[in-house]
Amino acid sequence: MGIEDMIKQQVETFRNRLMDGLDESLDHSGVNSRRVAERLTALAEIGMTEEGGCRRISFSQEEKQAKELVKQWMEEDGLDTHIDGAGNVFGRVEGETDGSAVVSGSHLDSVMHGGHFDGPLGVISALEVASAWKDAGVKPAVPYKVVVFTDEEGARFNGGLLGSQSIVGELDMDEEVKRVDFNGRAFTDVLADVGLTPEGFREAKRDVNDIKAFVEVHIEQGKQLEKRDLPVGVVTGIAGPTWLSVTFSGVAGHAGNTPMDDRYDALVAASEFILNVKDFPQQVSNSSVATVGKLSVDPNGVNVIPGEVTLSVDIRDIKLEWKEELSKRIKDYATEVSEAHGVTVSVEETMNVAPVEVPEQMQAQAGEAMQETLGVEPYYLPSGAGHDAMILGRYVPVGMLFTQSLDGVSHNPGEWSSLDDCVQTIHVLKRFVEKVIES
Amino acid sequence: MGIEDMIKQQVETFRNRLMDGLDESLDHSGVNSRRVAERLTALAEIGMTEEGGCRRISFSQEEKQAKELVKQWMEEDGLDTHIDGAGNVFGRVEGETDGSAVVSGSHLDSVMHGGHFDGPLGVISALEVASAWKDAGVKPAVPYKVVVFTDEEGARFNGGLLGSQSIVGELDMDEEVKRVDFNGRAFTDVLADVGLTPEGFREAKRDVNDIKAFVEVHIEQGKQLEKRDLPVGVVTGIAGPTWLSVTFSGVAGHAGNTPMDDRYDALVAASEFILNVKDFPQQVSNSSVATVGKLSVDPNGVNVIPGEVTLSVDIRDIKLEWKEELSKRIKDYATEVSEAHGVTVSVEETMNVAPVEVPEQMQAQAGEAMQETLGVEPYYLPSGAGHDAMILGRYVPVGMLFTQSLDGVSHNPGEWSSLDDCVQTIHVLKRFVEKVIES
Repeated sequence: MGIEDMIKQQVETFRNRLMDGLDESLDHSGVNSRRVAERLTALAEIGMTEEGGCRRISFSQEEKQAKELVKQWMEEDGLDTHIDGAGNVFGRVEGETDGSAVVSGSHLDSVMHGGHFDGPLGVISALEVASAWKDAGVKPAVPYKVVVFTDEEGARFNGGLLGSQSIVGELDMDEEVKRVDFNGRAFTDVLADVGLTPEGFREAKRDVNDIKAFVEVHIEQGKQLEKRDLPVGVVTGIAGPTWLSVTFSGVAGHAGNTPMDDRYDALVAASEFILNVKDFPQQVSNSSVATVGKLSVDPNGVNVIPGEVTLSVDIRDIKLEWKEELSKRIKDYATEVSEAHGVTVSVEETMNVAPVEVPEQMQAQAGEAMQETLGVEPYYLPSGAGHDAMILGRYVPVGMLFTQSLDGVSHNPGEWSSLDDCVQTIHVLKRFVEKVIES
Repeated sequence: MGIEDMIKQQVETFRNRLMDGLDESLDHSGVNSRRVAERLTALAEIGMTEEGGCRRISFSQEEKQAKELVKQWMEEDGLDTHIDGAGNVFGRVEGETDGSAVVSGSHLDSVMHGGHFDGPLGVISALEVASAWKDAGVKPAVPYKVVVFTDEEGARFNGGLLGSQSIVGELDMDEEVKRVDFNGRAFTDVLADVGLTPEGFREAKRDVNDIKAFVEVHIEQGKQLEKRDLPVGVVTGIAGPTWLSVTFSGVAGHAGNTPMDDRYDALVAASEFILNVKDFPQQVSNSSVATVGKLSVDPNGVNVIPGEVTLSVDIRDIKLEWKEELSKRIKDYATEVSEAHGVTVSVEETMNVAPVEVPEQMQAQAGEAMQETLGVEPYYLPSGAGHDAMILGRYVPVGMLFTQSLDGVSHNPGEWSSLDDCVQTIHVLKRFVEKVIES
C-alpha cells in the first residue's frame, strides 16, 4: 500500500472511530453531532500522517488550508469573515446590538507529531455555537465571533501563541524576525510562504475593548476528567510556568578510591533535592505542581563520582502569589540541600510566565452552564499548560472548558476525545456563551 | 613556540618539579633518589604532551620505546632480561638459591590523557630495589624479578590488564582478537605494529608456581594518605567492581496537567534510591563503596514528567562476601523503592570482577617494613581500583604499597607524587621484598 492509500485509510479510521461515539439524542438546540464529526474529520484529513497523527505545523500550507476550510464553513453558515495581518481568521455573527463581542475559538496548527483535537476541537466547538444558532433561528444580543489563531504551538520557531499575542499587541516583532526555523529559514521567508509579513503581524493589534470576553474549549491533556468520568470541566486558571535551572557542583573522584565519608557527590545532593521538591507544592496550594524533568550528570561515568549535576524545575500555579511562594521555597531549599551536602549550588530562572486567573463570574457561569445542560455537578480544575486564553486573559475576561482526553495523552497521534464528550462540551459552551452575552 | 619546544619545556618543568622533592638524607642502603628522578623523567619524556600529561597508550610506539628503555636500564644494572610473547618485560636478579622468584613491577602504558606516575612509579620502584642491591653489593636469597606488564590501562581496546592476564593464562584470545581500536583497526593489526601476535600472548602463560609472591607499588589515586600526611600506605585488598544497570520505569506526562498525587515519576523514585544507596556501604564494611555515577532521563524535557531513568551503580569491596552482600541489599532496595513509588524497576549486572584480598602475612610484612624504614605506624587502606596485582593475586600471594597522590588526582595530566614520597615508598618496598624473600 502506498503512502497516499495509508493516509486515506487513516482518515477513514478516524471518521469511523469518531462516529462510534455518535449519540443523536444530543442533537437539540441546533447542535448537530454529525456536522461536528464531519468537520473534525475534514480538518484531520489536512496533515494526516501515515501513523494516524497530525502534522499541520504553523506557517505550513496545511495550516493555511485548514484555516481556509474553516473560513468557508463560516461563510456557509452566514458569518462575516475576515483574516487579519497575522493570519488569524475571524467569523462574525451579528448581534441585536452592536456592543463589544463575545469571542470563542482556538488554533489549527499542531506540533510535529500531534493529534487531531488539540486546537481543532476549540475552533469547531466555537463554530458549532454559531451554526446551532443559525439552525435554531437564534440571533445573539451582542456580536459573537469565532476565531482561529495562528501558530499557537510554536512548532516552527519555538515561540508559539503568535496569533493571540499579535491581536493584544504583546508580540515583540523586532525579536521575532530574528528567529530561524528548524531548516534554518528566516522568519520573514517562512511567513512569505503563506502570504504573511511581519508588518501584517504588527497591524493585527486591535482594541481589546471590542472584546467583551473570550471563551476557549480545549482538550484537557490530563486525566482528571477521565478519572471522574466527566465529559467536560471548568477551568479555574491557566498556570504560567516558572523554569529554574539548578546546578549542584561537588567534587568528581574515583568511585573506588574515595571513601563514602569523603565525598562531595553532586548527584546525591541533587537526589535529595528532587525527592523533597515533590512535597513542596501541596504546602502552597492544591493547584501547584513542581517537576524536575531534565537532568544531566558530569562527567557521567560509571566509575566516577558525579562532580556536577544540572537539572530543571518546572513550577506552575494559577495564582501568581502561590507560584512565587513555591518558587521561593524551592530556591531556598536548593541552598539548604547544597549546604547539607558540602556542595555549591547556582539557580537561574530561565522562564517566568505570569498565570492567568479565570474571573469568578466566568467560572460560575461556566459551572451553571454545565449543571443546566448536562445535569451534573460542575467540576473545576486548573490548566497546567498555556493556551491562547492565557494571552487574552491578561486583557479581557476569559473562560475555558476542558474536554476529557483519553488517557491524558496529547501532542501525540494517540490523542483522542470521544464525539459524545465533544458534543456535550459544545452544549456547555453554547449555554456558557449565551450566559456571557446576556450578562 | 613550536610543539616540540613546548614538549621539551614540559619535560624540563617535570624534572625541576620532581627535583624540588630531592632529599639526599634518604639516600642509604643503595637507594639513589637522583637516579629515581632521572628515570621517572626519562620515561615522562616518552609520550609527554603539550599540556604536560602523558599519552603512552598500549601497543603504541611510545609504550614499546618506554619498555626498551627500562630493559636497557635492567641490563645496565646486571639483570637478565627477557621479553615474552605478550611483550611483558622481565629483568631477573639471580638469587643465592634457584627457588621461585619474588616479582615486583607494574606497567608503562597510560590512558589517553594520563599522568606520569600511574604505572611508571611501580616499575621504577621495583627496578630501584635491584639497583640498590647492586650498589650495596647485596644478593637476594631467591631470584627477584622486575616486570613491566603490557597494556594495563586498556586505552586501546577497552579491556586492559592484558599482560598480567596472559601470564596467568586468563586471557580469552578468541574473544580478544575480535576487538577493534578507536580507529577501527583490528586487534591483530595493532599488535603487529609493535611486533606482537595473538599467538605470542597465548604462549606467554607461565607456571605460577615459579612466582613466590608479587608486590606492586602504585600511586593511591585517592586522598587518604594525603589527609594523614603519609608518604605510603599498605593495601589490604583490591576491590573488584560489580556494575549494576538499574532502570526505573514510570509514566511520562505533562508537567502542568498532572497533579502531584497522580504521578509515577521515574526520577523521583531514582532519587530516593540514589539518596539512600549512599548509606548502604557503611552497613556492610568500612571498605565498601557504592556510587551512582551515570544517569540518563527519558524523555528529559523541562515540562515532561520523567518516564524512565537508567542509572549505573558501581559497587566495590575487598572481600567477595561483603561485596555480594552489598550488591544484594542494593538490588533488593531498588525493588523496594520502585514498589513504594508505583513504578517498575529492572536491574542488570553488567560487570562482576572478584576482589582480591592481600594475605594477612603480606600485609603484616609490608606494615613492619613501613614501621622499620620510616618509623611511623603503618596505615592500611583498600584499593578501589583494579591493578595487575589483582590478576596475579588470584594465583599467588600479592602485596601492594600505595604512594601519596597529590589531591587524589589520577588519569589526568595533574597526577603527581613528590620525589620524597616516591623514595620513601621505595625504601618500604625494598624492606618488604627482603622480608618476603626471607620468609
